[in-house]
Formats: sequence, C-alpha cells, structure tokens
Amino acid sequence: MEREHYSKQYDAELAEIRAKLLEMGGKVELMINDALKSLVERDSELAERVMLFDHEINRLEIEIDGRCLEVLARRQPAARDLRFLTLALKIVTDLERIGDQCRNIAKRATELNQEPPLKPYIDLPRMARWAGVMVKEALDAFVRGDDELALKVCKDDQFVDDLNEQIQRELLTFMIEDTSSISRALKINQVAKCVERIADHATNVAEMVIFMVKGKDIRHTTRVTTPTP
Amino acid sequence: MEREHYSKQYDAELAEIRAKLLEMGGKVELMINDALKSLVERDSELAERVMLFDHEINRLEIEIDGRCLEVLARRQPAARDLRFLTLALKIVTDLERIGDQCRNIAKRATELNQEPPLKPYIDLPRMARWAGVMVKEALDAFVRGDDELALKVCKDDQFVDDLNEQIQRELLTFMIEDTSSISRALKINQVAKCVERIADHATNVAEMVIFMVKGKDIRHTTRVTTPTP
Repeated sequence: MEREHYSKQYDAELAEIRAKLLEMGGKVELMINDALKSLVERDSELAERVMLFDHEINRLEIEIDGRCLEVLARRQPAARDLRFLTLALKIVTDLERIGDQCRNIAKRATELNQEPPLKPYIDLPRMARWAGVMVKEALDAFVRGDDELALKVCKDDQFVDDLNEQIQRELLTFMIEDTSSISRALKINQVAKCVERIADHATNVAEMVIFMVKGKDIRHTTRVTTPTP
Repeated sequence: MEREHYSKQYDAELAEIRAKLLEMGGKVELMINDALKSLVERDSELAERVMLFDHEINRLEIEIDGRCLEVLARRQPAARDLRFLTLALKIVTDLERIGDQCRNIAKRATELNQEPPLKPYIDLPRMARWAGVMVKEALDAFVRGDDELALKVCKDDQFVDDLNEQIQRELLTFMIEDTSSISRALKINQVAKCVERIADHATNVAEMVIFMVKGKDIRHTTRVTTPTP
C-alpha cells in the first residue's frame, strides 16, 4: 500500500510536469500568433503586450526547470522517466527561446508599423502558422512519445525554409526596384528569420523526441547538408 | 575504503564529463575561427572542411549526453552534482547549435567566395573573435563555477550586438549606393546573424552558470528590454 501510494504520487508529479509543459507550449503558440497579428494588422498595442508576455514564458521556464530537478533529486528515476525528465529540461529551454523570438518579432512590428506598409503580408503569416503548428506537434509528440508525429515535424521544417527563401527573394526584388524600401525590407527579412528560428526550435525538440522514443539519434541525419566523411 | 573507492570513481566520472565538455568547447572555438577564416581569406576548401567537421561536434554531443544520463541513472546525484549534470545536458545542446551556425557561415562563405569581394572584412572577424572568446569564457565559468566570469560574458554580448548593428548599417549603405551589391550584402548580413547567434548561445550558457552558482535566476533580468509589468 505504502509503495503504491508512493508510486501514484510520483506518477502525479510526472503528469504535472507534462501538463505544465503543454501549458507553456500553448502560451508560446498564442504568442507566435499574436506577434504576427501585431505585424499584419499593424497593431502596436498588441505588439507591446506580446513583449510583456515574455515574462510569463520565462516564469514558466524557471518553474518547470525547478520541478524537474526536484523530481530528479527526490525520486531518483531510472531509464524511461530519467530520459523524459532530462528531455523536459532541454525542451523548456527551446520553448523559452521561442518566446524570445516572438518578442523580437513584436519589436520589429512596432518599428514597421510606424512606416508606410511595404506590401501586404501573405507568405509571412503562412510561414508563422506552420511554425506554430510545428511547435504544437513537437510538444504533442513529446508528451505522447509519438515518434511518427515527431518525424513529420522534422520534415515540415523544409517547407518553412522554402517559404523563407521565397520571402527573401521577393524582398530582394523590392530592394532592387526601390532603394527607399531597403530598410523596411530588411526588417521584414529579420521577422522571417525569427519565424525560421522558431521552426528550428520545434525541429530540435522533435529530433530529441525521436531519440527518446527510438533510442537512436536522428538529430544529425535528417538535416545533413554535407556528405558524410 | 569501499565507500572512498566508490566516491573517487564518481569524482572521476564527473571530471571526465567536465573534460569532454571543454574538449567540445575547444573544437567549437576552432570551428568559429576556421569558418570566418574561410570567408576572409576566400578559402572554400577550408569552408568544406568546416562543414564536414560539424559531424565531430555532433558526435561529441551524443557522447556527452550519454555520459550524463549514465551518471544520473547510476549515481543518483543530489544537489550540486545534480545541478551540474542537468546543466551540462543543456550546455552541450548550445555547443552543438554553435556548430550548426559555423556550418551555416562556411556555406555562405563558399557562395560569397564565388563572387567578387564586396569589401574587406574588418568588423565581422572582430565580432567573431569576441563571440569565440565568449564561448570559451562561458565554458570556463561553468567548469570553474565562476559566476563573475559568467557575468562578464553576459555583458560582452552587448558589444557583439552593437558590432552587428554597425555591420548592418554599413551593408545598408552599400545596398543603397549599388543595387548590384544587394545579394552579396544580404549573404554577409546572414553571416553576421550567425555570429550573433553564436554569442547568444554563449550568453545563454553564462546565464545558466550564474543560476547554478548563485541559485538565482538572472536569465531574464540581464537582457530585459521591456518594462516589468
């Protein structure tokens, strides 16, 4: 009985960490959406709120880190749980840095909103929606231990990279045609870069999930761009 | 006696992880230098070697991750050692991603080396040298538990950001004066962004070290750019 009680409480602690991670993920997703919305709808007040919201993400990072360390210290987990906890520690870092990127996007949005619009944003919000879905799916893959979903996330990263290339090419055309657009085009380029980084973080999480599930490391095989020596 | 033997071996395991991390850090530093050298000296063969070397960094990441998990599982460390090991797990991820950035720089270098030079590189290698020193000092701060050195790294990040701003402004002038330079200028801009990301990783490591030493989190205070709510 004693033992069963102990194990139930332990399970509850792990479930709590899982729930907190999903909560953090949900908030980060919201932040991605709002950051882009503040740009597309030229809503600088929303951009300010996004920048402030970063504190909430940082608070959650510290909280989840603390809980993981506590469980590691008190429960001395082995095998699967140990892998789950150490991965959770890595994943919160990625989520927190996604929050940083959202803050950067919001900052650029406030700057861009003060100038006349360069062009309607079409590919950029599309790219951000993809990145947001990738973050959600990477986390779902983690809490469910679903390596197939994780693999899908890794593959989706290519699409985001392609969109980024396309945006960069289009901005280049603007810059060449009208040098007065260069400064704004560069800022939009920076936003695209931020979104690309968000997708990179999601991919990193997904690659770690595959490692957790399969026990084998694909982190350095899905995106190898150079020949193996 | 038995116990002492046990503890000596445990200490040796921790020392080994520390040494492996420093080895990985040293290799990453070399990679930063070589990536920039391949750009400045227009040495595309060196750039190819940098891209291939990324495999070595990835291999070290997997190895150190594995060792940390092993010690966590077998030694069930508490307090200080637990914090050291979980932080080591996070730090290897940063080091590996610095390797990714070096690969990106080398890739851009091979592209830029095929076109006529835009201008002599002066600020960019300077920025990279700073970033390299930041990586070295962040790791030294970690293995020595030196929070003052870690704080210095956090402060140095501002200088790298300033250099990046300066480079971007200069490139903007080139682009406005001669639109045929835009494509090259954008690539150089991407290299500067990669170096900035390397410095960001070093700063992230340093902030985590301060948290480890002080037990208090400055991760979200040194670089707060928005007012606290």
